[in-house]
Amino acid sequence: MGKSKTTVLVAGSWGTALATVLASNNHEVVLWTRSGQQAEEINRTHRNSRFLKDTVLPDNITATTSIEEAVRDSRGVLVVSPSHGMREVVRQIRPWLRPDSLLIHATKGFEADSLKRMSTVISEELPEYDHDRIVVLSGPSHAEEVVQKSPTTVVVAAQCLETAYAAQDLLNNSYFRVYTNPDVSGVEIGGALKNIIALGAGMSDGLGFGDNAKAALMTRGLAEIARLGAAMGASPLTFAGLAGVGDLIVTCTSRHSRNWRAGHMLGQGAALEEVLETMGMVVEGVKTTKAAYALSGKYQVEMPITAALYEVLFNGKQAKDAVEDLMGRVPTHEMEEVAQSGHLRWN
Amino acid sequence: MGKSKTTVLVAGSWGTALATVLASNNHEVVLWTRSGQQAEEINRTHRNSRFLKDTVLPDNITATTSIEEAVRDSRGVLVVSPSHGMREVVRQIRPWLRPDSLLIHATKGFEADSLKRMSTVISEELPEYDHDRIVVLSGPSHAEEVVQKSPTTVVVAAQCLETAYAAQDLLNNSYFRVYTNPDVSGVEIGGALKNIIALGAGMSDGLGFGDNAKAALMTRGLAEIARLGAAMGASPLTFAGLAGVGDLIVTCTSRHSRNWRAGHMLGQGAALEEVLETMGMVVEGVKTTKAAYALSGKYQVEMPITAALYEVLFNGKQAKDAVEDLMGRVPTHEMEEVAQSGHLRWN
Repeated sequence: MGKSKTTVLVAGSWGTALATVLASNNHEVVLWTRSGQQAEEINRTHRNSRFLKDTVLPDNITATTSIEEAVRDSRGVLVVSPSHGMREVVRQIRPWLRPDSLLIHATKGFEADSLKRMSTVISEELPEYDHDRIVVLSGPSHAEEVVQKSPTTVVVAAQCLETAYAAQDLLNNSYFRVYTNPDVSGVEIGGALKNIIALGAGMSDGLGFGDNAKAALMTRGLAEIARLGAAMGASPLTFAGLAGVGDLIVTCTSRHSRNWRAGHMLGQGAALEEVLETMGMVVEGVKTTKAAYALSGKYQVEMPITAALYEVLFNGKQAKDAVEDLMGRVPTHEMEEVAQSGHLRWN
Repeated sequence: MGKSKTTVLVAGSWGTALATVLASNNHEVVLWTRSGQQAEEINRTHRNSRFLKDTVLPDNITATTSIEEAVRDSRGVLVVSPSHGMREVVRQIRPWLRPDSLLIHATKGFEADSLKRMSTVISEELPEYDHDRIVVLSGPSHAEEVVQKSPTTVVVAAQCLETAYAAQDLLNNSYFRVYTNPDVSGVEIGGALKNIIALGAGMSDGLGFGDNAKAALMTRGLAEIARLGAAMGASPLTFAGLAGVGDLIVTCTSRHSRNWRAGHMLGQGAALEEVLETMGMVVEGVKTTKAAYALSGKYQVEMPITAALYEVLFNGKQAKDAVEDLMGRVPTHEMEEVAQSGHLRWN
């Protein structure tokens, strides 16, 4: 593993954490940000205080506001933009991206309105780039723990397995274990949709329900995610792995999670505007609920938890009523529900 | 739902909590215990202070030390004995059990040495009883929350679906949602084996590892459980449901869990004897680790987490070394591991 140049865009908490992983692997890491003030702070004090206030960044991470400086001659470009910014960021990368560079994204969400997955958005904006070199990275990975080198596992998926291995080579180390998976859409869908369930889990906790209720919500949420994923062409198996149940668990049970925290505030009675204002960061799960609600209609997949959250977020339904409705559904035969999750069949 | 007589044996925390569910459904509930002192406390003060110290039990729960008094004329007998006591308890029930009574067990473990499932033990001890009337109940359900009527979901499984529906009828109410499932062995295996992963999760937390590491352990633990379950004839789908991932989540992420607490003490450096002494209650996960280790050999199923815990519990391996070994395994292709989980196949 040489001292090759790698790039991370943008300098949020997850982007910065991934930059520290690359830095641990002895790469020269350039972190791109739109904010001159943030770039200067990173270069002068080795801190990104807005997103990871207690972390001192290693010397081999430098920041820039110039896309050309960030991307030119880079061998690995990681894009960790919020989902609504992905198309614009990739458009800016395009003139400088080497054809032999890897392009890895770690963004969990769909494009609003178009409902496209992030790798589709990237492919559309890079028509001359080899789409086999596009990678998605996902899994149970709080940024706050990764910067502390706490043991973490993630999965990288690409259409071409060689590309996934190259991404694994770039990122894997003793505390950051990278698994490969060929199911790009499953990894993207799992990562995006679990944020909806995390909102619901936070809401259940905020309402004062217990661990039993939250586990029920997560279990049925996982079935609902796998059901939509299978309808969209993903493998149901991916939802049993790190990008599915693994990420679901970490997002629903940890106070590090923004989506859980947003749900918790909603459960305690806050309005959506108030929650979004207080968080001061993007809450992907809110946008994803809208997207998944539309996708469940498009693919004709029953998603009761998503539908209930949609009503709370966008139609003023009380959180308490929504969770009680979910718990109060007519008792049913468990396997009918699970068996709808695609190729899996109950005999 | 009439005021029919139902029975719960024995008066531990989960047995007592299930008695309160039956009492909520207007049954006359007789709780059997070997301890005259405990029976007297329940009858006189409506408390079971050793196991559920803050709970006042409803009037329609009475206790007895007489098996005949407990079981005779009962329409639903719930056995919630620790796994090592199951055979003996069922043997005592036999003379008094009505042929048309349901026999529901809610015990999560295997019989030591024989490695038999609880429903097998029950069938062997009740040769003249219709085995189609044996039910297993499992799912994410802390007793402490059930007695508070906090929303909870469980699953009941029986060879005969009519029996499962009868058990559902007996137990289902507005806060205790009962789902049916035909996979008796899957529900029993999931409930037993998740205690191993809970020990491991507690150990990881006790060692100071983070939420990322715990989620990884739980995800790979679930794959390992499903793999053994499939080899033993269970449906892999069951492990995606309440008795699988649901129970795994609640047991690994809640401080109510004895198995998690035992693992946590081990992670902090306590010896096994010390842990068992401090707990003062049965830690099923310890016995189950020994059973599962033997089963993984018998069925030739790779179970790295179970093997690592076996070394810590019974061969003096340091918890830290065990968890680090697990994290440090050679990075691999995620789907190979998951795809081994039985009928599921990756294309």
